[in-house]
Amino acid sequence: MPFVNIRITKEGATPEQKAELIRRSTQMLQEVLGKNPATTFVIIDEVDTDNWGIAGESVTVLRKKK
Amino acid sequence: MPFVNIRITKEGATPEQKAELIRRSTQMLQEVLGKNPATTFVIIDEVDTDNWGIAGESVTVLRKKK
Amino acid sequence: MPFVNIRITKEGATPEQKAELIRRSTQMLQEVLGKNPATTFVIIDEVDTDNWGIAGESVTVLRKKK
Amino acid sequence: MPFVNIRITKEGATPEQKAELIRRSTQMLQEVLGKNPATTFVIIDEVDTDNWGIAGESVTVLRKKK
Amino acid sequence: MPFVNIRITKEGATPEQKAELIRRSTQMLQEVLGKNPATTFVIIDEVDTDNWGIAGESVTVLRKKK
Amino acid sequence: MPFVNIRITKEGATPEQKAELIRRSTQMLQEVLGKNPATTFVIIDEVDTDNWGIAGESVTVLRKKK
Repeated sequence: MPFVNIRITKEGATPEQKAELIRRSTQMLQEVLGKNPATTFVIIDEVDTDNWGIAGESVTVLRKKK
Repeated sequence: MPFVNIRITKEGATPEQKAELIRRSTQMLQEVLGKNPATTFVIIDEVDTDNWGIAGESVTVLRKKK
Repeated sequence: MPFVNIRITKEGATPEQKAELIRRSTQMLQEVLGKNPATTFVIIDEVDTDNWGIAGESVTVLRKKK
Repeated sequence: MPFVNIRITKEGATPEQKAELIRRSTQMLQEVLGKNPATTFVIIDEVDTDNWGIAGESVTVLRKKK
Repeated sequence: MPFVNIRITKEGATPEQKAELIRRSTQMLQEVLGKNPATTFVIIDEVDTDNWGIAGESVTVLRKKK
Repeated sequence: MPFVNIRITKEGATPEQKAELIRRSTQMLQEVLGKNPATTFVIIDEVDTDNWGIAGESVTVLRKKK
């Protein structure tokens, strides 16, 4: 009964891409650890780029620099 | 000083229902473990049905099947 | 299919007390929001008192003051 | 490679204030534990006041009482 | 710069299996969303079976029933 | 009433260093956002190096390469 929480920046992931993350995470836990898909949960959190920092700066600022 | 995080799908929980979850979670920790309500935190996260998967599919897809 | 994460300090909660938290959290989500117990997950994290802070001090230090 | 998750109520924190939280959290981990800023992540979650409870009541209700 | 948190019950996952979860989660985010592996974090939490509940009972109890 | 969760690898942080993380996180939220220290929680999770991955490999493996 695993629980997977995927956090990504909110930058336009489509419902199809999110469905693919759910499908593959569930499959991964079944193949690697034999976990039952019926009780595997996946939650995707999409985080505003102002609210995600790396190397001391927000992703909003980092995206502008590139 | 417990911390309770409740994650549910975003499907119309009312402020009254959320207040009830907060009230009962706090009371549960007081009754079961003697925790002080004054320092008990509860956070409710409401997750889009596209972003929650179970059994390898999103809740959006699962709801349509039923 | 809710997910409840309860975080408490590691100070001797018994398996019976933890089972009671699991039972009551699941019942709460069924009664307040009509959620299906079969797909309700509860995870309890027990945190070392050195690793939990409130009001700027660790619980280890706060417990000694009392 | 630390990960810092800051959860605050959604009550108008500005991008500048959030950038300051990111900057200072990263600096703190470098100064206290020698962690590399390049692989330090900070995520800020802003939570609706209806969804945050303390002492058994939502912050929405607590704010009205004051 | 995604962050993946995988929570499983503590029932003997080997370092090799955990390395495989890390490898595949990172690859999944690269293939599905084009995320850079260099800044993809994966954290695996192994939870005691007394501390994980499903359907209102701890996994410890559920395992005994089967 | 902020909540800060700091996740680091389990590599010997001392109680004094963890107390310093608690003290500084609390002070940061007071100075940047005016939050009340009395209701600021900090939880530090120390994660086994086998259970933390970056760039597709566990920290255990990465440490050996250096």
